[in-house]
Amino acid sequence: MRTCPVRVYYEDTDAGGVLYHAAIVRYLDRARAEWLREDGISLEQVAREQKRAFAVREIRVRYLNPGHLDDALVVRTELSDSGPASLDFAQSVWRDEECLATAEVRVACIDTETERPAAIPEQMRQGAKFDG
Amino acid sequence: MRTCPVRVYYEDTDAGGVLYHAAIVRYLDRARAEWLREDGISLEQVAREQKRAFAVREIRVRYLNPGHLDDALVVRTELSDSGPASLDFAQSVWRDEECLATAEVRVACIDTETERPAAIPEQMRQGAKFDG
Amino acid sequence: MRTCPVRVYYEDTDAGGVLYHAAIVRYLDRARAEWLREDGISLEQVAREQKRAFAVREIRVRYLNPGHLDDALVVRTELSDSGPASLDFAQSVWRDEECLATAEVRVACIDTETERPAAIPEQMRQGAKFDG
Amino acid sequence: MRTCPVRVYYEDTDAGGVLYHAAIVRYLDRARAEWLREDGISLEQVAREQKRAFAVREIRVRYLNPGHLDDALVVRTELSDSGPASLDFAQSVWRDEECLATAEVRVACIDTETERPAAIPEQMRQGAKFDG
Repeated sequence: MRTCPVRVYYEDTDAGGVLYHAAIVRYLDRARAEWLREDGISLEQVAREQKRAFAVREIRVRYLNPGHLDDALVVRTELSDSGPASLDFAQSVWRDEECLATAEVRVACIDTETERPAAIPEQMRQGAKFDG
Repeated sequence: MRTCPVRVYYEDTDAGGVLYHAAIVRYLDRARAEWLREDGISLEQVAREQKRAFAVREIRVRYLNPGHLDDALVVRTELSDSGPASLDFAQSVWRDEECLATAEVRVACIDTETERPAAIPEQMRQGAKFDG
Repeated sequence: MRTCPVRVYYEDTDAGGVLYHAAIVRYLDRARAEWLREDGISLEQVAREQKRAFAVREIRVRYLNPGHLDDALVVRTELSDSGPASLDFAQSVWRDEECLATAEVRVACIDTETERPAAIPEQMRQGAKFDG
Repeated sequence: MRTCPVRVYYEDTDAGGVLYHAAIVRYLDRARAEWLREDGISLEQVAREQKRAFAVREIRVRYLNPGHLDDALVVRTELSDSGPASLDFAQSVWRDEECLATAEVRVACIDTETERPAAIPEQMRQGAKFDG
């Protein structure tokens, strides 16, 4: 399980005075990018050198408690399953000990030129994360 | 079932050259606002006069096909279920006859001052949509 | 002068209860895309077929009055000047007769492969807008 | 002069393959929030306890070089001038030694209930930043 800190700015809030629900979807995406970066994997490099990207196939988010401006949040991310061309993540967003949201996200590896499913590059599969 | 047209602009795309997945979550939100507006309900007015807002409790989106810059999309929205303090929507995003995404969304009516669940205002419940 | 209608949704507001200032920057961008579309020009097509894009070089926005959730706004756009590789726009955002913001925006035509300045395609220059 | 690190995620990029220009406007806003936080000032607290917010009155951004996915950027922020009810900031965005954008931003202190200009709270004026 890896963690990624996120601060709530005005851009993330809405006129209801709370953290906008789609902002959490962006936070989850940031946290998955940081999860890969911890293994030395840069999404930019993967796209440029290997013509591969991760496309979100399914996302399910349960919102449990409202977030607010200036909150210092933490996104927890772990790999729950992996296939030859997809990764399943379990994620959650926390403010101290209070859980704001939980999420399950499936991403598929795609060839950026054809936009079709493609095998996850071997180099990426060798990371410890795929053993977990 | 009601429809809401949406155009894909640069702000909605990402460096993968496609419609960013969280942008679709925003489109779904716009379409729910327009769904209410067709019954003469303004979210701004509901918030100001009745201190009520709709908070997303759960969202599940399946991404089926990529969207692209300049696409003219249509979001289809229908009420699939309703309770005293919540509404369930079935939504989908289309480019002509091609479905880009399907979604199930539960929103809860909340008191904007306490941020706690509250009954959906009677005036809103009288709309034909709640009979459907 | 061309106009583009824009609705303010929750995604565009912030916890101050008003239209977020960066959302107006996105609105201006949408209106420039629609301005081109009125001449039959699609930014997606220009990028794909001619490897050209318009990059914002400078933007100046003066915020005069706050916008709010559910506002039905109109963005007015006119070409104020044009060079071989750049366009200058004068834009403003209105709620009925009240001006929310005025803006001056310079965009440069770039080659999407080199990211360097490039001449505006001849086909685009022939539009009536460049005579105005 | 204070600095604020920012990472470029997919949410910040566009189909042109570069950092979207309005994302930089959001980065500038984050950096101003962090600038205040360094003096122990929380925008959320100011809004809740003193009914004050800072509204952007004018923003001018010059875009000099494109940003890209995964870039590790730094926003530099300094107060260039201050009045009884407004603050002027000079900001810039950097990738190592390369400047991506410069900006001048004027924000006004407003009463969140009336949405009208209001004096900057005395407590905030006592910070060292206003002496600089």
